[in-house]
Amino acid sequence: MKKIVFPVTNGSVTTPKGFKASGIYAGIKQKGKDIACIVSDAPAFVAGMFTTNKMPAHCVVFNKLQVRDGCAQALIVNAGNANCCTGEQGWQDTVEMARLTALLLSLDKNQVLVLSTGIIGEPMPMDKIRNGIDRAVTALSGDGGLDAAQAIMTTDTVPKNYSVEFELDDKLCSIGVIAKGSGMINPNLATMFCIFTTDVYITSHLLQQAFKDTVKSSLNMLTVDGEMSTNDTALLFANGAARNNKIEAKTKNYYIFCAALKALSVKVTKAIAEDGEGATKLVTVTVSGAHSKKQAVLAAKSIANSMLVKTAIFGKDPNWGRIVQSAGASGALINIDKFSVEFAGIKVAENGGNTSFDKTLMSQALEEKNINVAIDLAVGKATATVFTCDLTHDYVTINADYHT
Amino acid sequence: MKKIVFPVTNGSVTTPKGFKASGIYAGIKQKGKDIACIVSDAPAFVAGMFTTNKMPAHCVVFNKLQVRDGCAQALIVNAGNANCCTGEQGWQDTVEMARLTALLLSLDKNQVLVLSTGIIGEPMPMDKIRNGIDRAVTALSGDGGLDAAQAIMTTDTVPKNYSVEFELDDKLCSIGVIAKGSGMINPNLATMFCIFTTDVYITSHLLQQAFKDTVKSSLNMLTVDGEMSTNDTALLFANGAARNNKIEAKTKNYYIFCAALKALSVKVTKAIAEDGEGATKLVTVTVSGAHSKKQAVLAAKSIANSMLVKTAIFGKDPNWGRIVQSAGASGALINIDKFSVEFAGIKVAENGGNTSFDKTLMSQALEEKNINVAIDLAVGKATATVFTCDLTHDYVTINADYHT
Repeated sequence: MKKIVFPVTNGSVTTPKGFKASGIYAGIKQKGKDIACIVSDAPAFVAGMFTTNKMPAHCVVFNKLQVRDGCAQALIVNAGNANCCTGEQGWQDTVEMARLTALLLSLDKNQVLVLSTGIIGEPMPMDKIRNGIDRAVTALSGDGGLDAAQAIMTTDTVPKNYSVEFELDDKLCSIGVIAKGSGMINPNLATMFCIFTTDVYITSHLLQQAFKDTVKSSLNMLTVDGEMSTNDTALLFANGAARNNKIEAKTKNYYIFCAALKALSVKVTKAIAEDGEGATKLVTVTVSGAHSKKQAVLAAKSIANSMLVKTAIFGKDPNWGRIVQSAGASGALINIDKFSVEFAGIKVAENGGNTSFDKTLMSQALEEKNINVAIDLAVGKATATVFTCDLTHDYVTINADYHT
Repeated sequence: MKKIVFPVTNGSVTTPKGFKASGIYAGIKQKGKDIACIVSDAPAFVAGMFTTNKMPAHCVVFNKLQVRDGCAQALIVNAGNANCCTGEQGWQDTVEMARLTALLLSLDKNQVLVLSTGIIGEPMPMDKIRNGIDRAVTALSGDGGLDAAQAIMTTDTVPKNYSVEFELDDKLCSIGVIAKGSGMINPNLATMFCIFTTDVYITSHLLQQAFKDTVKSSLNMLTVDGEMSTNDTALLFANGAARNNKIEAKTKNYYIFCAALKALSVKVTKAIAEDGEGATKLVTVTVSGAHSKKQAVLAAKSIANSMLVKTAIFGKDPNWGRIVQSAGASGALINIDKFSVEFAGIKVAENGGNTSFDKTLMSQALEEKNINVAIDLAVGKATATVFTCDLTHDYVTINADYHT
């Protein structure tokens, strides 16, 4: 099959047919919107991927139970409080958020998912949240996606909302997404939320499979600071409103859907990396020539999480020794006499050692916002790509200057 | 056996009888001393621990071969160039350093070990090094340990040299150490050099066993920035000059030697953490109540390497949410309803949630240079302690402004 390019545009979760959304200010954060609601007109299939942190927030535990049957119709989100390490009362608060949203939308409570992000260990301000949910449901609209994108932001500096369109059986279909990345008003965690909606008709099982495969090569290849939040969640709702024939496994339509989903997911992954706390650069780390896929991923994540590599890129220094060192530290095999390294598209090491390059061209290349670093380990054929950002004074400031 | 406390003093590798050392400037670094030599008057047993980085420097590969027979008499060290990723010529340069040192000392070349630290991928300035080795050998003296400690420094701000004394069979014995640390430090050894000398008489096999056990609970529990160097090496020379009866396994004397070695090794581990690049705090992370020793170590290292925890401590913020999050991210089991956290000796969370504490006392405690953070996971009995430092603006400055 010819590779199709899917142009990603600035739509959102309300771009697909049959979804409404809203974002309002309930007074949980210092300012800005802080409660978002997303609802499908009809019951939808849902796929979810959750943090593997052993100290999950209440909403993560709750949603894992809710999505077991593969169905959900609405999502309520608050920013400003993570509702994590808040004991039995915290659990009751999550359940109440779902119940209240369901009541206001005349849905079964099993149809509602809940997301919370913000400070850990503080009780939920439920009076504000109850009032906010009421207003968020009232505010739901067919073009409320951007409001919702704004309401899930914490220390994000820009809202992240995108969409992609494609045709299945001559029916126009689309996938939309809103996401938040690292940080919050009171930065505690780099919580990541990524909420996809689509109007395609697809089975629950196949939706989960497509989502899992997509997240593996996009959101799971993202690192800002190597931290794993207690609340990280990615959700994909599919309501069938595009009225395409049901997507079946191993069909052309399935591959088109997966390719579109991946294009959108990679776009939002890059957007989160680029907007990482204090970041000045979007860094794409590519490892090739690895002995196995596992070793390629290990090496790429090791490089992307290396504080020495991240500070070198902030300092505009093509310090390939740090790339090699962190690749080697990962345990991935390296051909010591054959490896090569590229910094910002310029070869800086080959055949296992230094190579000369144009210093002026390199200086110019390192001024760019997007920096690619690539290492060929020269032992096999496996590859992996990870997205990250640089480590800057602003990261330290953002995370050191907050006081509990 | 009663627990014995060994007072650690500011001796060095020339404190034990029968060792000479020197440190001179050969022009490899911008300034300061950069070549060190350490020699035992008589052949010595030697134990070595090396980086597990898959891209080891030439000196690491060379020393692993040299110590296979458990014997060595001299060590030559240069700072300023790591001699890593320098191809066949780099290997020849390491061999030449050993040969030249052996020639000048009238030793067999198999009796000489070589250490290099500094920039990766640059050819060794062998003219300077040859000249420097000549002068370092000439400068050898029975009180040259501090010179040697200074000559192995890179971005270290203070030399690290200590010693400990103890009696075996009424013979005064001692162990001395010099070390360098600073950046690219992570357990499993990073560009960290740690060179121990002792005048005890002990078999080669037992020396290796004692050293392995000691490193496991001290140097391997050290992390500055989660990076693992290509050159990390710890060496322990034992020349028998104290004329004690040979130390045998499972004897009181063996336990005394091990206890003294551990006291010294923990001291130097803390000194390296405290002098981490840009550090303002020595941070001791203790995990208790873990399901297993492995999970305790995993959780402690995860907390110690967490950029969010490290910036919180720099910011004097008792942010226990970040401690719990990074413990959970490690995969260690946590009792979500029972865990507790202490920050600088003050309880900040218990029974799985917030607890009130005296803000004034906390503010005072966080002004201290030494900060302890402790989490009780409340699932078992295993414990682990890791030593690290905070993450500061100076770390970013040092590593962003260091140009290749």
